[in-house]
Amino acid sequence: MNAELGRRAAAELVGTAFLVMAVVGSGIAASRLSPGDTGLQLLENSLVTGAALVALILALQPVSAAFNPVVTLVERALGLLSTTTAAALVVAQVVGGLVGVVLANLMFDLDAVSLSGTERSGGHLWLAEVVATLGLVVIIFGSVRSGRTDTVAYAVAGYITAAYWFTSSTSFANPAVTVARMFSDTFAGIAPGSVPPFLLAQVAGGALALGLVRLLYPTTEETP
Amino acid sequence: MNAELGRRAAAELVGTAFLVMAVVGSGIAASRLSPGDTGLQLLENSLVTGAALVALILALQPVSAAFNPVVTLVERALGLLSTTTAAALVVAQVVGGLVGVVLANLMFDLDAVSLSGTERSGGHLWLAEVVATLGLVVIIFGSVRSGRTDTVAYAVAGYITAAYWFTSSTSFANPAVTVARMFSDTFAGIAPGSVPPFLLAQVAGGALALGLVRLLYPTTEETP
Amino acid sequence: MNAELGRRAAAELVGTAFLVMAVVGSGIAASRLSPGDTGLQLLENSLVTGAALVALILALQPVSAAFNPVVTLVERALGLLSTTTAAALVVAQVVGGLVGVVLANLMFDLDAVSLSGTERSGGHLWLAEVVATLGLVVIIFGSVRSGRTDTVAYAVAGYITAAYWFTSSTSFANPAVTVARMFSDTFAGIAPGSVPPFLLAQVAGGALALGLVRLLYPTTEETP
Amino acid sequence: MNAELGRRAAAELVGTAFLVMAVVGSGIAASRLSPGDTGLQLLENSLVTGAALVALILALQPVSAAFNPVVTLVERALGLLSTTTAAALVVAQVVGGLVGVVLANLMFDLDAVSLSGTERSGGHLWLAEVVATLGLVVIIFGSVRSGRTDTVAYAVAGYITAAYWFTSSTSFANPAVTVARMFSDTFAGIAPGSVPPFLLAQVAGGALALGLVRLLYPTTEETP
Repeated sequence: MNAELGRRAAAELVGTAFLVMAVVGSGIAASRLSPGDTGLQLLENSLVTGAALVALILALQPVSAAFNPVVTLVERALGLLSTTTAAALVVAQVVGGLVGVVLANLMFDLDAVSLSGTERSGGHLWLAEVVATLGLVVIIFGSVRSGRTDTVAYAVAGYITAAYWFTSSTSFANPAVTVARMFSDTFAGIAPGSVPPFLLAQVAGGALALGLVRLLYPTTEETP
Repeated sequence: MNAELGRRAAAELVGTAFLVMAVVGSGIAASRLSPGDTGLQLLENSLVTGAALVALILALQPVSAAFNPVVTLVERALGLLSTTTAAALVVAQVVGGLVGVVLANLMFDLDAVSLSGTERSGGHLWLAEVVATLGLVVIIFGSVRSGRTDTVAYAVAGYITAAYWFTSSTSFANPAVTVARMFSDTFAGIAPGSVPPFLLAQVAGGALALGLVRLLYPTTEETP
Repeated sequence: MNAELGRRAAAELVGTAFLVMAVVGSGIAASRLSPGDTGLQLLENSLVTGAALVALILALQPVSAAFNPVVTLVERALGLLSTTTAAALVVAQVVGGLVGVVLANLMFDLDAVSLSGTERSGGHLWLAEVVATLGLVVIIFGSVRSGRTDTVAYAVAGYITAAYWFTSSTSFANPAVTVARMFSDTFAGIAPGSVPPFLLAQVAGGALALGLVRLLYPTTEETP
Repeated sequence: MNAELGRRAAAELVGTAFLVMAVVGSGIAASRLSPGDTGLQLLENSLVTGAALVALILALQPVSAAFNPVVTLVERALGLLSTTTAAALVVAQVVGGLVGVVLANLMFDLDAVSLSGTERSGGHLWLAEVVATLGLVVIIFGSVRSGRTDTVAYAVAGYITAAYWFTSSTSFANPAVTVARMFSDTFAGIAPGSVPPFLLAQVAGGALALGLVRLLYPTTEETP
């Protein structure tokens, strides 16, 4: 692994760790500070995640800021990354997610790791994950392929904040974050048994999005 | 229909579908998670709609991102679109709205379609729709005609988030979205009988706005 | 009055009308939808005002977007406007504010005009108005004099949203809006007897700010 | 002290004063208006701080806008400031923070100064301050070193809004603000005895961040 790929993997690890801290940590804070008010909890959780994404993408994008294996796989499918690079970034994202969930647990004085018992299962939730991931990938590559890379931070933050609410699954839409969220038995957790269909739905959403991106933006930097 | 018009119609369909999902889906989530607290519900609903608009306009604007027949008609009146193109985009917006409301219902485990029973009627609400649509069109074309197309996403998102609150009608301000909202008997729904005067008020607001835009911005890209 | 000044006055009138609608209208909606929860009401009121300011400044700034007599007077003091122009814009702002409060009342099915009975009086509130206006003017002219006019919308919106909360007066900071808010006996109203010291404090804050702006930004477009 | 350094120190003083007013003042307003609802209080406090940061950084950045001794020390370590300049700016930040807390107390009709009795102590809180400060410094210098200085306002605002929630300490992450917050026995206060370990943790976070910044961005304005 050369120096540049090392830096890119480090950026993915740091960024995904902070993203998972934002999701899991704000979930813990929200459920402690707004007990019994699930609407307010989700408002807090969703605004915090969006705010963190603005910061993380703006600061790390010049190095690498996908923080999401589906996004990295679509970049690979579009020929923007080599297979080696994509694999290294995905590993860094998964490791970063695990670092993030452990730090979130420790900062809130919990055990470093605890398996979540929150079942998230059902056809409507899997449909929601397909839709959520499809939308996310269209948002990202719509901006990128039309030469507006500097707006990706705001577009992704706005989309994820909204998708927490308009998809019944609260829009996980990210395999690295989904895996990490198994390891905190708190507000944002997901039971291990619920993870595989979520991952499948996310990959399916990414594949559908790849087709839609190619349809809407047949060439890069087109401005019709 | 040539390839470029096809792509533009596809962008309007996808964008309007996600916009309606944001409006209707977040309304369902808000009423479930914040039962009995209508203020918090509207805060959730309005912030989510604004956040989604930032993402959708940033990502789809290089192809087509009106998502609103009144906006498309004003573009036609200003000579920015041919009649054929305008007609195709309006059809795509209406179809996209229907796709969005069905997906929102299904993601929340409801019947694909249910007619809303929420009456929204009264002179003050129709005045509100005139004002809401007038303001929206001025915001959009003020930005466009002064050569600041890249700020439209933030201007529209800010305006709509605010207009949910400062107009008593919660600012539908969009015929395609209004029609779609008939088909979900949930928080954001509107009874079919209440729809025609809303559409009339929106068209009236758009016509007034057209005059105001011509007064304020007599030429394009003027920067006095 | 020539055509360009006419357009500028029209932009100030329209912008101030929508700003007052946002402030007063969202106040009415907030107190109806979140009864008894003054914190949530102010959160709704402050976020809506900030969101509206983003939209109004982005769209109208290429014509004229002060919406505030203190800002226009500081522009006059800095030699950016003639006395005639400043006077015309201030008149337009005051008229626009009155149009806005009447429309807000009517949209919420209230009498077109009702005098507010809300006393807002006390040394700590007047101090708050001095601080609030001082900060607003520094924020605006800091951006303008350092050649970053395109960020004013975000800076002002952020500042006003925050100042609702960190000043005990909820940061009126604007004589045209203060005058208009006398004419709605609702959440955002202010009793006529409380208005004169508020206006004095705002002018004092503007004068202090003028000195600070000259200290911090001795020349225009300096980038130390 | 020459004229330019004087202006930079003045900007740091004014900016840090308004930042502390935003933090402390909105904390007082939140606890008065949303009594008993600590979640809503923190939501109000965190959104206000983020909104104020957008405004303050946008307006003062062309002069000087660190508002934070850790940030100034990292700039010194990176060779961007002389020792004299760094010392002057840190003094201005601390003085500004004290001015801010006094004004916040007075605006809310409290004694100018009152020592906080809020203990904030424990290993998990100190870990949180390390993480919070590390993240803040990476966000700032990631943007700066990749030549995107104009996005720092949004990145910092997003980060701080989020970090209030995802760190258990509510992310003080700023020695000047931490010191100032001793002097208000209100929502945002911190007991003097709790301050030293917070300052140590913040410096440690800054030092770790310095290493990470050098790893991720080995040269300035690199765009890999």
